[in-house]
Amino acid sequence: MMKKIDHIGIAVKSLDEAVELYKKLGFEVKEIEEVEEQKVKVAMLPVGESKIELLEATSPESAIAKFIEKRGEGIHHIAVNVENIEEALENAKKNGLQLIDEKPRIGAGGKKVAFIHPKSTKGVLLEFVEG
Amino acid sequence: MMKKIDHIGIAVKSLDEAVELYKKLGFEVKEIEEVEEQKVKVAMLPVGESKIELLEATSPESAIAKFIEKRGEGIHHIAVNVENIEEALENAKKNGLQLIDEKPRIGAGGKKVAFIHPKSTKGVLLEFVEG
Repeated sequence: MMKKIDHIGIAVKSLDEAVELYKKLGFEVKEIEEVEEQKVKVAMLPVGESKIELLEATSPESAIAKFIEKRGEGIHHIAVNVENIEEALENAKKNGLQLIDEKPRIGAGGKKVAFIHPKSTKGVLLEFVEG
Repeated sequence: MMKKIDHIGIAVKSLDEAVELYKKLGFEVKEIEEVEEQKVKVAMLPVGESKIELLEATSPESAIAKFIEKRGEGIHHIAVNVENIEEALENAKKNGLQLIDEKPRIGAGGKKVAFIHPKSTKGVLLEFVEG
């Protein structure tokens, strides 16, 4: 059911600084986009079939700003590709997992995404991405 | 230089419980092994070309036990495949990054691995895996 790791989200204070650092480490930076709905600026670093997603908050209300305030910079979430996101959500719900999104919403790149609450996944904020 | 995401390490209190949960979510569990040197029990969950690595400490001295004590269960590290680990370490050092391992050591699956300190990578514990 899980096709691949779509991306790993990393919360950073300064996207420019983080991009500079990851470039030095040997990562390639493909594109930078703003996802208004989630109040973040995102840099995509392709690695094989996956991506590292560096995330900077564009508002103090952003989940990323709150995460950094609480835990500091670091790995924020894991996103996996599923074939059918509605099915994946239904399956998670049936198994007693707590959903953050009962229904998919539109994430970076215009794809259908939904988050599972870390309380029910051993502290891991898990994102499903369709396709 | 970065070939693919080798795995994402997740620190859990009970490997049995975590394995059960991730199976329910639709992940496949391939193998469970003990890495004595790192005092952990590891379950490998293949996802595309990568893996999710669930890690349970086998001793209170394990880095995983300390991580959970401090931050709770959750995403512990990201491992990327590099072609030449000595070169990758030298490059990181040259760029002022703080290495945990100056020289590679042997990790899960008998591969050469080395860790970069999260202080120098925006809070991300980054592991290089050769090959």
